[in-house]
Amino acid sequence: MSRYAPLPFSHVKLEGQFWRERLETVLTRTVPSQHRKLAEYGILDSLKLPDPPPPLRFPRASNGFTVQVFWDSDVGKWIEAASYALSHRRDPDIENKIEAAIDDLEMAQAPDGYLNCWYLGREPENRWTNLRDNHEFYNAGHLLEGAIAYFQATGRRRFLDIMERYLDHIYSVFGRGDGQKRGYDGHEEIELALMKLYYLTGERRHLDFAAYLVDERGQQPHYFDMEREARAARGLVEQRYPFPNYEYSQSHKPVREQDKVVGHAVRAMYLYTAMADLAAELGDASLKRACEVLWNDVMNTKMYVTAGLGPSAHNEGFTHDYDLPNQTAYAETCASVALIFWAQRMLHLDLDGKYGDILELAMFNGALSGLSRDGEHYFYANPLESDGRPSRWEWHTCPCCTMNVSRLVASVSGYFLSTAADGVAFHLYGGISTEVEIGGTRVALREVSDYPWRGEVAIHVDPRSPAEFDVKLRIPGWCTGASVSVNGRSLDVAQAERGYLTVRRIWGPGDIIRLNLPMPPVRLYAHPAAIADAGRVALKRGPLVYCLEEVDNPGGRVQRLRLPRKAELHAEPYNIFDGAVALTADGVAVDESDFTQLYRTTPPTEQTAVVTAIPYFLWANRGQGTMVVWVPESAG
Amino acid sequence: MSRYAPLPFSHVKLEGQFWRERLETVLTRTVPSQHRKLAEYGILDSLKLPDPPPPLRFPRASNGFTVQVFWDSDVGKWIEAASYALSHRRDPDIENKIEAAIDDLEMAQAPDGYLNCWYLGREPENRWTNLRDNHEFYNAGHLLEGAIAYFQATGRRRFLDIMERYLDHIYSVFGRGDGQKRGYDGHEEIELALMKLYYLTGERRHLDFAAYLVDERGQQPHYFDMEREARAARGLVEQRYPFPNYEYSQSHKPVREQDKVVGHAVRAMYLYTAMADLAAELGDASLKRACEVLWNDVMNTKMYVTAGLGPSAHNEGFTHDYDLPNQTAYAETCASVALIFWAQRMLHLDLDGKYGDILELAMFNGALSGLSRDGEHYFYANPLESDGRPSRWEWHTCPCCTMNVSRLVASVSGYFLSTAADGVAFHLYGGISTEVEIGGTRVALREVSDYPWRGEVAIHVDPRSPAEFDVKLRIPGWCTGASVSVNGRSLDVAQAERGYLTVRRIWGPGDIIRLNLPMPPVRLYAHPAAIADAGRVALKRGPLVYCLEEVDNPGGRVQRLRLPRKAELHAEPYNIFDGAVALTADGVAVDESDFTQLYRTTPPTEQTAVVTAIPYFLWANRGQGTMVVWVPESAG
Repeated sequence: MSRYAPLPFSHVKLEGQFWRERLETVLTRTVPSQHRKLAEYGILDSLKLPDPPPPLRFPRASNGFTVQVFWDSDVGKWIEAASYALSHRRDPDIENKIEAAIDDLEMAQAPDGYLNCWYLGREPENRWTNLRDNHEFYNAGHLLEGAIAYFQATGRRRFLDIMERYLDHIYSVFGRGDGQKRGYDGHEEIELALMKLYYLTGERRHLDFAAYLVDERGQQPHYFDMEREARAARGLVEQRYPFPNYEYSQSHKPVREQDKVVGHAVRAMYLYTAMADLAAELGDASLKRACEVLWNDVMNTKMYVTAGLGPSAHNEGFTHDYDLPNQTAYAETCASVALIFWAQRMLHLDLDGKYGDILELAMFNGALSGLSRDGEHYFYANPLESDGRPSRWEWHTCPCCTMNVSRLVASVSGYFLSTAADGVAFHLYGGISTEVEIGGTRVALREVSDYPWRGEVAIHVDPRSPAEFDVKLRIPGWCTGASVSVNGRSLDVAQAERGYLTVRRIWGPGDIIRLNLPMPPVRLYAHPAAIADAGRVALKRGPLVYCLEEVDNPGGRVQRLRLPRKAELHAEPYNIFDGAVALTADGVAVDESDFTQLYRTTPPTEQTAVVTAIPYFLWANRGQGTMVVWVPESAG
Repeated sequence: MSRYAPLPFSHVKLEGQFWRERLETVLTRTVPSQHRKLAEYGILDSLKLPDPPPPLRFPRASNGFTVQVFWDSDVGKWIEAASYALSHRRDPDIENKIEAAIDDLEMAQAPDGYLNCWYLGREPENRWTNLRDNHEFYNAGHLLEGAIAYFQATGRRRFLDIMERYLDHIYSVFGRGDGQKRGYDGHEEIELALMKLYYLTGERRHLDFAAYLVDERGQQPHYFDMEREARAARGLVEQRYPFPNYEYSQSHKPVREQDKVVGHAVRAMYLYTAMADLAAELGDASLKRACEVLWNDVMNTKMYVTAGLGPSAHNEGFTHDYDLPNQTAYAETCASVALIFWAQRMLHLDLDGKYGDILELAMFNGALSGLSRDGEHYFYANPLESDGRPSRWEWHTCPCCTMNVSRLVASVSGYFLSTAADGVAFHLYGGISTEVEIGGTRVALREVSDYPWRGEVAIHVDPRSPAEFDVKLRIPGWCTGASVSVNGRSLDVAQAERGYLTVRRIWGPGDIIRLNLPMPPVRLYAHPAAIADAGRVALKRGPLVYCLEEVDNPGGRVQRLRLPRKAELHAEPYNIFDGAVALTADGVAVDESDFTQLYRTTPPTEQTAVVTAIPYFLWANRGQGTMVVWVPESAG
C-alpha cells in the first residue's frame, strides 16, 4: 500500500454545517478576541524588549504572577491560529497585528539568534540553564509553528527567517558534538514543530535535530541532573522540583523503552506526535513499536470516554491505570487537541481506523468541549461531572488551551482525508470539497453530510477523466450495520479491513458513493477497574458522547437522575441549536426535598422523569449548573 | 435539670471485651512503639537544647524536612497518652521516659518561662512573630495537656510547674492590656487545654485567657495581618500564605458570627470544643448558639457517614456543602477524635442524645479506623473507598494522628457516663464499672454488654443505701424498637426525651436495668446533594458503619460488587476476630475478565455473589486491597 499523507487544510473546503459554524465562530470571534486578551494581559507587551511595559497582575491568579516563562508560546500559537484564519480569508487587520508581533520579536532577537523574551528581558545571562522547567525549546517550537503557518498563509518569510536564525543558534549550542550541550526540553513541543519545518523545507537538519531530541531524552547521565549541578555551581537559586522522578516530562528513560504513558499529558502527546512523525519518516520500526505500545496503554487504561487525558491537576497528567475520577478530571483541552495530533500521525504511520476513531472522538468531545458556543469562553480542565460550580472562563493564567482549540478548529479540514499515489482515504465526515491529484489524474471530491448529527454521507468522486484508484472509507468503530453503495450498487462492508473499506474501481465523472452509518443511541459501560464509573452508564450517539445538564433537566441537580437499564433511548432534534440532536429516555429522579438529614435509612423517594442528554461538547453554554456524563443506573 | 459532668476516665473501669482489647493494645504496643518512633525520628532529640543532635531525614517525606515546628506538640501528646496509660497501671520504664523528656523541657525553658524548642533552638530572636503559621500556642497547649495528665496519673508537679511558668510568660505578653499583643494561634488547641487546667486548678485566669483567645479570634484589625506587617518591618522572609482568606484557621470573622464550618478540620473542632466548654462554664448563650449553628452545619452538610470530617487534602479540611468524595476523602483521624471532644462538650452543655450519637459514631468509625489492630500502624487520612494502593503506615512526617488516637483509646472510659447532683447519665455502652456519688450516696454502677456487637445491655445499680435519683439512658438515634426494664418491669421507651430515657426511682442494692437495643443491619442513603454517593448505599449495624474489603470478597476489586435493593442483609459472627459481626447479602458481581476494552456498549456480565461487609474501622488490617463503603445498588 502506498503511503497516505494528509492534505493541507487550506486545500480542503469545509462545507458542512457543523464545522462551518465552528470555523466561522473561530474566525470572527475567537481569533480577534484572543488578540485582545493577549494585549490586555500584557502578553504582547512582554515581547517589547529591552523595556517591556509592566504587565498587569492577572486578577484570577492565585500566584500573583506578572510574567510567565511560556508567553512566547502563546504569541506563537495565536499567530498560528490567526494565520490559519488568513488562509481562509485575508484580513489586513489581523496581518498588521501579526506583523507588529513579528516586529517585536525581530527587535528582541539577540545578535547570535537567541530569541526568548522572558530570558532576554530578565536574565539574559542565564539562558539555557534550566531546560527542565523554563520552556525555551517549547516556546521556540510554538513560535516556529506560527512562523510556518504565517508563511504558508501569506508567503511572507520574515518570521520564518527569524526562526531559522534562532534554530541556527540552537543547533550550534545543542547536539552531540564536542562542547555542545546534550539538552532537550522539559516540555516537548519543538520536536513536532521541527518536523513541520522539515516537511516544508525538506532540509534534513531539522529532521535530524528532532530525532536527536527524541533519542537523547531520558539518556544517562541525565541532562536535567547535569543542568541542576551546573546551576548549583553558578550559585543559582534552585526551586524544589515537585515530582519524585522525571516521568513528569517523559524523560525517566529513553523513549524506546517507555511502555507506560506517564507524566504531564500534553507533553506526552506532543512527544508521541513527533515520535510517530519520525517513525514514519525514518521507517524506524522500534520507534513505531514504542508508539504502538504507548497508544495501547493509554487507550486500554487511561483515557476518559470523552477522549480526555490526564486525571490529575497535580501533574496535569497521568496517574495509575484506570484512575479516571469524573468530577475532578483534569482532562486538559490541550491534551485532547494533542491526542488528535498524535492520532493523525499514527494514522499516517499505519492506516488503521482505530486511530481515526480516536481522532474523531477527541475532536468532537474532549477537544471541542474546550471552546464555548460564543467562541470567547474556555475550559482548561474538562471534567465529566460538575456540581455546578466550575464554569467556563474568559482567560487563564496559562492560556495554552485557548489557542490550541482555535488553531485546531481553524485547520480542522486538514484532518478529513489523505491521499496517496493511488488513492484517497476519508477519515472524517461532515461536508468538505477538494480537488486532489491521484496517480496523475485531477479528481474533484465532495463529501456531503449532516455528520455528526446524521449518518448519511454522499461522496461525489469526479475525476477529470476516468481513472482507477482506491477510495478508502473509514467505517467508524462505533458503527454497526454500516452500508455503502457506489452509484446505487451495494458493496459488502464486511470487506472492510482495519477500519477502512477500500473501493477500487475505475472512477468516472458523476460517480457517487453513498455511505450510511446508522447511529442509534447507545449505552457505554466502563471497565470495572474504572471504579469511578461503577454502576453507571454513559450515553453516546455516533461519535458524540452525551451528558445530562441541569438546564435541560430542570428540578435540581442532575445527580438526582437515574437511568433504568432497559429504558429506551430516543434521538430527537433539540432546540439547543439548529440541527442538534438530543437523547431522551424515561428515567428516574430521586427527590431531595424530603431529605431532612444528610443520611437516612429509607431510599430517596423516586419519580419517573424524562432524562434529556445533550452532546458533551455543548455543556456549560447556558449558565452554570450541574452536569454528569456517567449516570447511575436505576436500582428500582 | 442539674448539670451533668463527665467522670474522669480513671474512675471508670473498662470491662467489656471490645474496648479492653483496644486499651490493652494501646497500653502494651501503641504507647511504647510511639516512644520508639519519637526517638527514631529525632523528635525527642529536638528537645535537647541548646545543641540537639541532627535529626534524621524522614525517609517518606517529600519535603525533605528535618525538624518540624510542631514536634513539641507530639511529645506533649505522647506524654498525655503515656500518662493515661500510667493511670491504668504504673510503669517505671514509661515514667522514666516521660521524666527524661521533662528534663529536656526544663533545660530548654528560657529564663522568662518561654518554652518552644523549635524557636529556642533555631530562631530565639523571632519568637512570637508568626502565630498564624508556627504553632507556638498549639505546642504549648499539647504540652499543657501532657503536664496535666502526668500530674493526674502520678501526682508529680514538675512538668505542670514548667507549663505554669510558661503560661505566666504567655499571659504577660498576650492580652488586651497596654503593650500586650492581641494574638491567638493559627492552630487552635491551647484554648481547650487551658479549660482543662481551669477544671484542675479552679484558677480563673486560665479560663479568662481561653475566653480572651476565643473572643479575640477574627477581630479587626486582624492580628495575622498586623503580625505579617511586623515581620515585613523586621525584614523576615515571608512564606506565601496558600489560602485566599483566614477561613483556614477559623479567624475570618469573630467566632460568634461564624455560621459555617470552614477551614482546617482539626483546628475547627478544637476551637468548637473550647467554645462549648466556655459556653457551659460561663453560661454564655451567644457562644452556645454559635456552637449549635456550627454543629447543625457540619451534621447536615459536611460529615462523612463514618463521622470523618474534611474532604480536602489541600486545606486538610472543609470545602463546600455536600462535597464528600469517597476515594479522596481526607477525613483526618485527628478530626474525628476532635469531633469526639466537641460532641462530649456539647453533651455536657446540653444533654441531648444527638451529641451522644455523633460521639459514638466518631468513636467507633472515623476515629478508631485510624489505629490498626496491631496498634502500631495508622491512617492519617481515612478514605471511604480505596483502589488498593494506600495502606496504613508506621509513622508520618506529621505524627499528630498517632497520639491522638492513642490518647483517645487510653482514656475512652471517660466518655461512657456522666453524673450530676441527682443522677447519672449513660452515653455509651460496652462494659464498665465505677462507683460514683449521687446526692451524697455512693452508688456502684456496672454496665455489662457485648456492645457494639450486641445490643443487650444490663446495668447494675447498687447504691450503698436506697436513694432516689435519675438514671438516664441514651437511646441511640440509630435504634428503633429499644426496650428497657428495671428489675424485670418494662418501661415505656417512648417517654425518652431528646435521646435519653430518664428512670427516676428509689434505687436499692441489686437493682438491674436491662436495655435492649435491636441492631438489625440497615442501609443508609445519602442526601442526593452528596453526589459522590448517588445510586449507592452504605451498610450499618448499630453504631458501626460497614465496608466491603477485598480480602473478604475475593475475586477482584470490591468495586465490582453491587447490592440489589431488596437483598436481605444478614448479621453473623465473623472470624476476623472473636465476637466480631460481619454483614452478608446476596449481591451481584460484575465480571471484568471479558472486558477487553476500556469502554464497551454491552453491560458487564453479572453473576450472583455473596457480599461480605466488615466494620469500617477494621479495614486495612490484612494486607492491601480495595475497599468501598458506598456500594452501588444493582440495576439488574
